[in-house]
Amino acid sequence: MSPTSARITAVDTFDVRFPTSRELDGSDAMNPDPDYSAAYVVLRTDADDGLEGHGFTFTIGRGNDVQVAAIEALRHHVLGRSVDELCADPGTLNRDLIGDSQLRWLGPEKGVMHMAIGAVVNALWDLAAKRARKPLWRFLADAEPQWLVSQIDFRYIADALTPQEALELLQLGRHGATEREALLRTNGYPGYTTSPGWLGYSDEKLTRLARQAVADGFTQIKLKVGADLADDVRRCRTAREAIGPGIRMAIDANQRWNVGEAVEWTRALAEFDPYWVEEPTSPDDVLGHAAIRKAVAPVKVATGEHVQNRIVFKQLLQAGAIDVLQIDAARVGGVNENLAILLLAAKFGVPVCPHAGGVGLCELVQHLSMFDYVALSGTTENRVIEYVDHLHDHFIDPVVLREGHYMAPTAPGFSAMMRAESLAEFTYPDGAFWAADLAQGKGAAA
Amino acid sequence: MSPTSARITAVDTFDVRFPTSRELDGSDAMNPDPDYSAAYVVLRTDADDGLEGHGFTFTIGRGNDVQVAAIEALRHHVLGRSVDELCADPGTLNRDLIGDSQLRWLGPEKGVMHMAIGAVVNALWDLAAKRARKPLWRFLADAEPQWLVSQIDFRYIADALTPQEALELLQLGRHGATEREALLRTNGYPGYTTSPGWLGYSDEKLTRLARQAVADGFTQIKLKVGADLADDVRRCRTAREAIGPGIRMAIDANQRWNVGEAVEWTRALAEFDPYWVEEPTSPDDVLGHAAIRKAVAPVKVATGEHVQNRIVFKQLLQAGAIDVLQIDAARVGGVNENLAILLLAAKFGVPVCPHAGGVGLCELVQHLSMFDYVALSGTTENRVIEYVDHLHDHFIDPVVLREGHYMAPTAPGFSAMMRAESLAEFTYPDGAFWAADLAQGKGAAA
Repeated sequence: MSPTSARITAVDTFDVRFPTSRELDGSDAMNPDPDYSAAYVVLRTDADDGLEGHGFTFTIGRGNDVQVAAIEALRHHVLGRSVDELCADPGTLNRDLIGDSQLRWLGPEKGVMHMAIGAVVNALWDLAAKRARKPLWRFLADAEPQWLVSQIDFRYIADALTPQEALELLQLGRHGATEREALLRTNGYPGYTTSPGWLGYSDEKLTRLARQAVADGFTQIKLKVGADLADDVRRCRTAREAIGPGIRMAIDANQRWNVGEAVEWTRALAEFDPYWVEEPTSPDDVLGHAAIRKAVAPVKVATGEHVQNRIVFKQLLQAGAIDVLQIDAARVGGVNENLAILLLAAKFGVPVCPHAGGVGLCELVQHLSMFDYVALSGTTENRVIEYVDHLHDHFIDPVVLREGHYMAPTAPGFSAMMRAESLAEFTYPDGAFWAADLAQGKGAAA
Repeated sequence: MSPTSARITAVDTFDVRFPTSRELDGSDAMNPDPDYSAAYVVLRTDADDGLEGHGFTFTIGRGNDVQVAAIEALRHHVLGRSVDELCADPGTLNRDLIGDSQLRWLGPEKGVMHMAIGAVVNALWDLAAKRARKPLWRFLADAEPQWLVSQIDFRYIADALTPQEALELLQLGRHGATEREALLRTNGYPGYTTSPGWLGYSDEKLTRLARQAVADGFTQIKLKVGADLADDVRRCRTAREAIGPGIRMAIDANQRWNVGEAVEWTRALAEFDPYWVEEPTSPDDVLGHAAIRKAVAPVKVATGEHVQNRIVFKQLLQAGAIDVLQIDAARVGGVNENLAILLLAAKFGVPVCPHAGGVGLCELVQHLSMFDYVALSGTTENRVIEYVDHLHDHFIDPVVLREGHYMAPTAPGFSAMMRAESLAEFTYPDGAFWAADLAQGKGAAA
């Protein structure tokens, strides 16, 4: 690509909300009525190529406006900057956003402000991959190890992973990358499905969807648990009977328990052979997870969708607190921080099974797992990407599942672009859907 | 007080910013140019007494608008509720705010959303104490232990502190409370001062202010470190020479270091006999603090002003990671969560030395330490409240220091009320100061 003088000319935001609470899709023990939402950002440029960078943070309704305000607070760091320079080194923007000392006070590196950084950083990676005419997973897999290392902020993790160690892991990961890329294009990357197991579903619906999941080629399903033990026993039995012994069944408490409760509850469900127990307690409780893991083995412990940053992941690994690390594409500070987390997981030999679902999280996170397979960990063994069959039709380049596997995206970018019609219809409160809804006096998302 | 039908009628917010960056007041290794700010909230009622509840979160400039937006996202939980009921049981509101599942997704219990909860909860305690015609510290110290226990959310901390243990600690704390209250009224609560040690100050100013601190009766000062080791060696030597050997000198790195750097840097400054090293690394790094503490003893390790919630404090105590626990009145979810943290500290026998300074943090946090002294830990040994001589004149009931001691507030409430003129002048961007400043094209806070 020849150098250009193109600049970022706009950082546009959208408060997009889908009325999912009306169907109890996505209901769990902590989140009974989510309205799946996205604080959505578009980076526009004055380049001739007409390309845009799209990114977003996932929320579940109220507060999506706060998340949008946080993205807007970052605008001055992005506007007017050279598109060539940013795309050649997204780490620069990542460092500038994390390093804004006044905004840093609002975290640091956690919560609303950090998720906003993730949305903007991911939008830049979307733009960079589009300009390189590659899907993000291949853009990353093709990158020089030294350059990937330069994208990572080692502050606060250098005691567990040095730049030199990261470089060696990435160099090692290149061996056989060509063969794995070919395999990936043919077979895809294994997924598992949470669609049968939402807490609000009847036993009949659970049975039907669990059988369907097996028929669709999934080798793992997941059930939400944690609201009522008797219900959970019945639902786990129902699901296990529906899928048989050969299919893995994970259970997910969505942070419902104290440490002691997590141990007791998991043991009470152990007879149904759960593969992992997910989010048994607060995502902040490293030592709590370590205690739970020790007590519930051989049931594995998984967490990560609400883990705020690489520093907490580092400790979960250092403390031997988890068997399964669940990255989320839009909770931490974007691709750069997820590279650090993937490298930490590789160093400690812990498999990464991403959190997905929500709005567009499957679309995003598949790229990170595919990069990890092709050019870092080099394996899909005991690795699965979560799949939920919600809201994919709102995206230009939705995920494609075949026989329970995510097929590798081929379109350039991060698969982050929402359809213009969807943005227009579901922007809150002025989009067509919400305007009509509010006129009828419902206003569920307010 | 006879029952009333009074309701909360308004939740008004203010984006208040002071142009402190122009004097390098408050400059440290991570925050070179803070504009001390408050996302400020006023709860108004239709009660005949005309009382209001005031609360705020401290920020350092940009992003204060995001913090205000987060407070506004909580408004629907507060408006229209019974003032009697809320003031009789602030824990109800605390639980409702933390339990809003959609907003919880933006944390959980951390960052912008959690600080907003803290501001609103603190405003309610201000109102409750005013209605009881007591300063907050006495309102808490006079409360029944059983009621105080009911104010605490034990989720995620019950493995370290049970309700029964909390009750016993509070019952024990009542022995001698009357005598301690009398002592407190006479002698005040010991403070220490950070005013000499800002990074942007010259050696001459450091020497002058350090001597002044000793003359003012302080027995401990604090220096900011972490930007440049040679500078820090010189500044520590300068300060130690100014104060002599009998005064404690703490050093504060404001999260500047990795674990290894923290150890090396602290050892390099050990010859100047620092009492504690504060925020040596990320506030999220429990295991990192534990490693640093082991390596730098007998220098003590202190942290807490950026610790997001009780769950991380619990782990810092469980891991033996800190010698000194630094609560902040406006970072966590308000008085209720700080009660939990004070109880955790009491259980583990770790002294609490609050973070203060900023805007109004001294005014708030003195109440928590005074309650702790009178009715919980029962001692001020090795306990000091930070003092910074900034911006107190903007408050109706500013802190009073005498011979290096905080004198016990006597006015009802939480000392949180800012002067109406200050609110009017420094509201951003429409207050008189900023309007004039922006008209001149400065706009430092934007």
